[in-house]
Formats: sequence, structure tokens, C-alpha cells
Amino acid sequence: MIKIVIIGSGNVAQHLITAFAKSNEVDIVQVFSRQKKSTVPLLDPTKITNDYKDLTEAHLYIIAVSDNAIASVSSKLPFENRLVVHTSGSVSIDLLDKKNRRGIFYPLQTFTKNVAIDFKPIPICLESENESDFDLLEKVAQSISNNAFNSDEKQRKALHVSAVFVNNFVNEMYRIGNEICEENKVSFEVLKPLILETVNKVMVLSPNEAQTGPAKRNDTQTIEAHLDFLSNENQATIYKILTQSIQNNGKEL
Amino acid sequence: MIKIVIIGSGNVAQHLITAFAKSNEVDIVQVFSRQKKSTVPLLDPTKITNDYKDLTEAHLYIIAVSDNAIASVSSKLPFENRLVVHTSGSVSIDLLDKKNRRGIFYPLQTFTKNVAIDFKPIPICLESENESDFDLLEKVAQSISNNAFNSDEKQRKALHVSAVFVNNFVNEMYRIGNEICEENKVSFEVLKPLILETVNKVMVLSPNEAQTGPAKRNDTQTIEAHLDFLSNENQATIYKILTQSIQNNGKEL
Repeated sequence: MIKIVIIGSGNVAQHLITAFAKSNEVDIVQVFSRQKKSTVPLLDPTKITNDYKDLTEAHLYIIAVSDNAIASVSSKLPFENRLVVHTSGSVSIDLLDKKNRRGIFYPLQTFTKNVAIDFKPIPICLESENESDFDLLEKVAQSISNNAFNSDEKQRKALHVSAVFVNNFVNEMYRIGNEICEENKVSFEVLKPLILETVNKVMVLSPNEAQTGPAKRNDTQTIEAHLDFLSNENQATIYKILTQSIQNNGKEL
Repeated sequence: MIKIVIIGSGNVAQHLITAFAKSNEVDIVQVFSRQKKSTVPLLDPTKITNDYKDLTEAHLYIIAVSDNAIASVSSKLPFENRLVVHTSGSVSIDLLDKKNRRGIFYPLQTFTKNVAIDFKPIPICLESENESDFDLLEKVAQSISNNAFNSDEKQRKALHVSAVFVNNFVNEMYRIGNEICEENKVSFEVLKPLILETVNKVMVLSPNEAQTGPAKRNDTQTIEAHLDFLSNENQATIYKILTQSIQNNGKEL
């Protein structure tokens, strides 16, 4: 069994703990949580510590804390030359304290508190300073996911910012769609088959091929009618900019 | 059998013909297509006409042409007091010529040429000038969809503009995500589990509850890093505006 310690008890830590608990190759020997008795329901309470000095020996330490806490947490670890990784998409490997062997273990997914998720399809971006550490990271990742791969820092950062577009910004489109529906007393439920079909299309077609609608058709009459219809400046600004983006196909003017 | 005539042979017309061809309650007695031998593969060629004078008697005439052709097509119909509807989300019922009984038959979906679609879940917005016509429209719609309902013009227009946000603009987010991946030599495939999970979440949570990410967390450090990372002005402009929209939750500043 590969022994791992999870440092953190937030959203990502919780989902990792749940996923590793089902693995036959990985054993969570300890979790570090500032609030000792906190939210680690699956775990034997004796395995939880809130004292860095109590950290036990393991093959891998996974720091799953907020981005701006990674550097300070890694410098507080009371040991050297062990394998320490963080789970962030946007933080450089260099922010981890040099006294340990460093790496990245970044699961590319949106984690919601208390919403169970199947880890198998989730991409996990791995990075390490040396090859034997990479092999261990890969084994650990493959014990929960079918989709672990090596990515350098630039690729990982590209995926992180792309994820903002295809997840956070897509969700903001849903929020605005919902807002327009509420303002006009129609149910957002009505849009759900369209939302599903939009996704189905991009699973098989490139986004360029999948595009339809007034912007793509250059249907200025409908675009004007929509802008007239929209009730607030935020909706109208976004409508104009995304219509332009579709019309220019992302090219600079 | 309810006899219907489809006027048009574009994308929406084609998908309606395919759907009605499977219905036991509706019979497509004729299709009007400007290019007579055009693209109506499912249909007996003798049922296709390109001459308004040849239009046959039917319970319902569905005008499925581009928005700006609806008025002129409806005025060319060589009969009066029959039920005539159009399939547009954004055109008023008043643009149909008054000589006939008027209505709306708007299927809210994105139709792709040559991509088959299951009509059953597709919402169909219905509107008519009088009640008995509504009953007929409802029967026709229910013969292909489980999701037909009455909506007034304002509701229909709201759905149409919302559809641009949740379909065209969502797809534009996918296009930009793909663009960033290509620029940084990672596969867009890696983002697909995240794309699917984003949709899964909004099927069960409200878009407000489902939101995560740097804008929602007010994580200015990550937002700045992302803006530094983005390679073109179009990406950066959209990133800034949608980040603001999430942070203000759509409220005006």
C-alpha cells in the first residue's frame, strides 16, 4: 500500500479523501486539519491531526489548501526530502518549499460540497521534479482516475484558465438565461433540453462546427431585437461582446 | 389524421418533416420547397411543390423559413381563413398575413444539418388567435413532443434570447477554451469531463448555487494571473466582463 497524508480539509481535500478511501492501492494514513474534529466523516478520528509536529511518515503528502496558503503550509512541514505535492491549477511548483521533493497533483474538476462525484473520468495533471516520484504520483492518480497524465506548468495553467471559460463562464450564461426567464415569467426548466443538446453537440463536433444562431448567421435584425429586449446593462454588454466574438471568430478586429 | 403542409426546406423544416414522418396522428400532405427536387429525402417527390398555386388543402400550414421571409411567404398564400403558423422564436404573430387564422409553433432547440435529434423532450411554444386552433396546434405538437405549452409573445421572445445565452454563448465559451488549449498544446478532450459536470450541476442546482471559481471566491491573485496568461485581447475582454458579472451577480454597479 502507498501511504499518503492529506493536508487540508476543504472541498478538494474532502473529495480526494472520499476517492482514496475506495482505493485498494492507497492508504490515507493521516489527515491534517486545522479544526481537528472537523469535517472528515469517513476517517478514523485518531488519524486526524492539527499539529505539524505529529505528521506521520508517508510516501506522499498532498497539500490541498487554498492557493495562497500553499507556500506557508509547505514551509511548515517538519521534515525534508519527502515527496510533497499541491493540488492547484494555477500555482507554480516553485512555491513549494525546496527542502522536500516537489510535485503537482491537480484534478481538473469542479467540486461541490456534499455532491458526490465519480473520480474515474477526471483528468489529473501530474508534474514532478524527478522521474521516480512521477511513477509514484501516477500510481496514486491511477488508483482513482483513468485519466492521469503528465503536464508542464504552462499546459496546466492553460487548462486552469480554459476551465474558467468552460465551467464558471458557462455557468454565468446559465445564470443570465435563468435571470431573463424569471424576469419574463417562464420556467428555466424549458431551456434544459437545449442546454443538454448544446453539450451533446460539442462532444462530437468542434465548437466552430457546432455554432448556430443570429451572431453566426450575421442576422442583424434579430440581434437588434434581442438588444432591445434585454432589461439590464450587464445582459446587453455581454450580449454585444459575445456576439462580436462569434462574428470575428475570436480574431482581433 | 391531421393534414399538414410544411412550407420551407431548411434546417427546421427538415427536422420537422423527419419528426412528423414518425407520427401516427399527423400526415404531411405536402411540402413547399423553392428548389423543387431539393432536400426532402423522406418524402414522396409528388408531395413536393414549388408553386404557391399548387398548395393543397390542409388543417395546418407550418411556415418554416428564415425570419425575414415569413411575412412575404405568408402573404403569397393563395387562400384565406386557414390556420397558418410560423416556427420563429423572435417574430411576432402579427407579421403573418391577416387573411388567415394565425399562430406560432416554435420548437426551442438547436438544429444541426444531418444530425438526428429526439423531438420528444423538445419544448414547443404554441400561440394562436383562437382556442379551437390552439387545440389543434397542441395535438400536432404533442404528436412529436412531450413538452408543448402555451406561451405569449413576450415569454417566447424571452426564451429565444435566453437560448442565445445558454446555447450560442455557451458554445462560444467552448470555442475560446478550445482556442486556449490549442495555443498551449493541450487537448480540448481533457476539458470534456468538466464540461459535462458543469451541465450535470445545473440540472439539479440553480446556476447561483452551482457557481465556483476565482470570480465567485473573489480570488484577485488568480484573476490577475489568468489575465496575464491570456494571449489575445478578445479573450481578456471577455474574461474581465464575465468575471465582473459573476462578482456583481448580475447587479448593476
